[in-house]
Amino acid sequence: MTIAMPSTVYRSRDLVEPALRAAIARLDDTSRHVASYHFGWVEADGRPTEVGGGKALRPALALLSAQVATGAAEVGVPGAVAVELVHNFSLLHDDVMDGDMQRRHRATVWAVWGTSTAILVGDAMLALAHQVLADAGTEASTGAQALLGAATQELIRGQLADLAFEQRPSVTVTECVSMAADKTGSLLGCSAAIGAVLGGAPPATVAALQTYGEQIGLAFQLVDDLLGIWGDEAVTGKPVGSDLRARKKSLPISYAIGSDTVAGRELAGVLGCDADLTDDQVAAAAGLVEAAGGRGWARQEAQRRLVAACRVLDSVVIDSSVRDELVALGRFIVEREQ
Amino acid sequence: MTIAMPSTVYRSRDLVEPALRAAIARLDDTSRHVASYHFGWVEADGRPTEVGGGKALRPALALLSAQVATGAAEVGVPGAVAVELVHNFSLLHDDVMDGDMQRRHRATVWAVWGTSTAILVGDAMLALAHQVLADAGTEASTGAQALLGAATQELIRGQLADLAFEQRPSVTVTECVSMAADKTGSLLGCSAAIGAVLGGAPPATVAALQTYGEQIGLAFQLVDDLLGIWGDEAVTGKPVGSDLRARKKSLPISYAIGSDTVAGRELAGVLGCDADLTDDQVAAAAGLVEAAGGRGWARQEAQRRLVAACRVLDSVVIDSSVRDELVALGRFIVEREQ
Repeated sequence: MTIAMPSTVYRSRDLVEPALRAAIARLDDTSRHVASYHFGWVEADGRPTEVGGGKALRPALALLSAQVATGAAEVGVPGAVAVELVHNFSLLHDDVMDGDMQRRHRATVWAVWGTSTAILVGDAMLALAHQVLADAGTEASTGAQALLGAATQELIRGQLADLAFEQRPSVTVTECVSMAADKTGSLLGCSAAIGAVLGGAPPATVAALQTYGEQIGLAFQLVDDLLGIWGDEAVTGKPVGSDLRARKKSLPISYAIGSDTVAGRELAGVLGCDADLTDDQVAAAAGLVEAAGGRGWARQEAQRRLVAACRVLDSVVIDSSVRDELVALGRFIVEREQ
Repeated sequence: MTIAMPSTVYRSRDLVEPALRAAIARLDDTSRHVASYHFGWVEADGRPTEVGGGKALRPALALLSAQVATGAAEVGVPGAVAVELVHNFSLLHDDVMDGDMQRRHRATVWAVWGTSTAILVGDAMLALAHQVLADAGTEASTGAQALLGAATQELIRGQLADLAFEQRPSVTVTECVSMAADKTGSLLGCSAAIGAVLGGAPPATVAALQTYGEQIGLAFQLVDDLLGIWGDEAVTGKPVGSDLRARKKSLPISYAIGSDTVAGRELAGVLGCDADLTDDQVAAAAGLVEAAGGRGWARQEAQRRLVAACRVLDSVVIDSSVRDELVALGRFIVEREQ
């Protein structure tokens, strides 16, 4: 079953992309060109493209968040641009660190222009995120900056933990969930709250939206990790079983290894050896993750996080049509296939 | 002749270092440890050190800038911490890009912990700079954020140009000065203005201080480039003639190559070949830079920038004791030997 992208996402693209393009236009020639490539607006040689950008979930959350506070999505636009810039700064730097050559079916920035350019253009995007909020120039935008800064620090802490995990033979599920909360949950939590902060919503509303976003973020990561094992290469753009091949300690894999089952111990043995895995071994390892309960747990956990996210919205007064959109976005995140 | 560090610098360290340490204490465990090493507060294994940090010229400028506006240096502290964080974020990333193994007589962060950690801790410092200003939470701090964001973008543009120059056979002096203005001038200009912004100084005063800092910044870079050829290794911590060995297109070298002299053409030939330079060849190349006028030009140009910096201070009303300190700081920058 394929679930359609909620209309919220398309609508937010229409509202946010011009502001994002205007922000990127402020960068120096090199950074502007490289960032425009990264966002899917141009080819590496500068020709325009119709590839389209990423899912832009964070901007959609930021606009819905502003609607909660003020009824008007527009108030959230600087926040939407800022979170999208921080997300993409982290993608540029992560691709350098992970050595990933492809993203969204295209060569990564460092693969085209080298690591130094990828580092610097990432830096430029991070600084630009704060410039966009500073330009809003309101008291509320200072609060938005504090929120975004804190989320960026958690994102960095999560990436540091992810890299440290690579050096370790095993990682507990608790450690893995904590890392995902930092690396993915924090920026989605910030996205879901930043519009409300810009719109001057009361602290309880901001806190509820942030928790909603954090829970959705964990659900997002669980689904991402499932797709990293069982995703369709034609849809996700990543080779089947890529996380197993890379011996990534993703959530379902960590669960399976820590499951104290025969399959879990066998999986630990397979992933513990140094040799490259054959296609048959990858398929067998995926079977072991499932047999050890990793697939079922991750699916249930994603659903549980979605339910928790939606429940927290009931704790505050939110217009029912906006709530419906937040719930639909959460469902899309959990049920998506890419 | 050795010129002593102005007392302003020591005084500003006393005021700024506790705030800088408090900011760094907010980072995650890894970033905090790595940043504390980078700032010279601890050894790589965590033992305390008495090495002391860098020159901390930028914080000193930020505090003097606040004194211009309000008479009180304290108002400039968040700005001083922010510019020092941005400066050090750029050092961490530059060392990765340039492959430099040593800084201030110590192993660089990437040389100790790897490039990924150096990238992430640099990112954490950049985000932290904006958090520190956001925490100040005043209308003026929003202006300070805009100023800092713009300086960061120019710094990045300068580093991109520097990297691009490495791929080119020659660079004009004009291009080289423009790159130095971006890479060094902009953040010193920001440092010299950010305290005044935080203190609510009138725009003309802010603009004059920024120009003063930009000119001082160019003088700083010219002296740095002279030390990169003729500096005393025991003092600078860099091997004699390191910029010549690295075939860096520094300001005096670019001037010499573009000088249309016999020595300049000979220098271009020496630096244009691929083989590693021997000590004798480095010494000969330094002689060619001098014979082609590069050393004299850079010295004069640094003096000229210092005079221009001091002159612009005359265009606005500044307490004479603060002006004297700004002038002394400028003189120190031009006459220093490390």
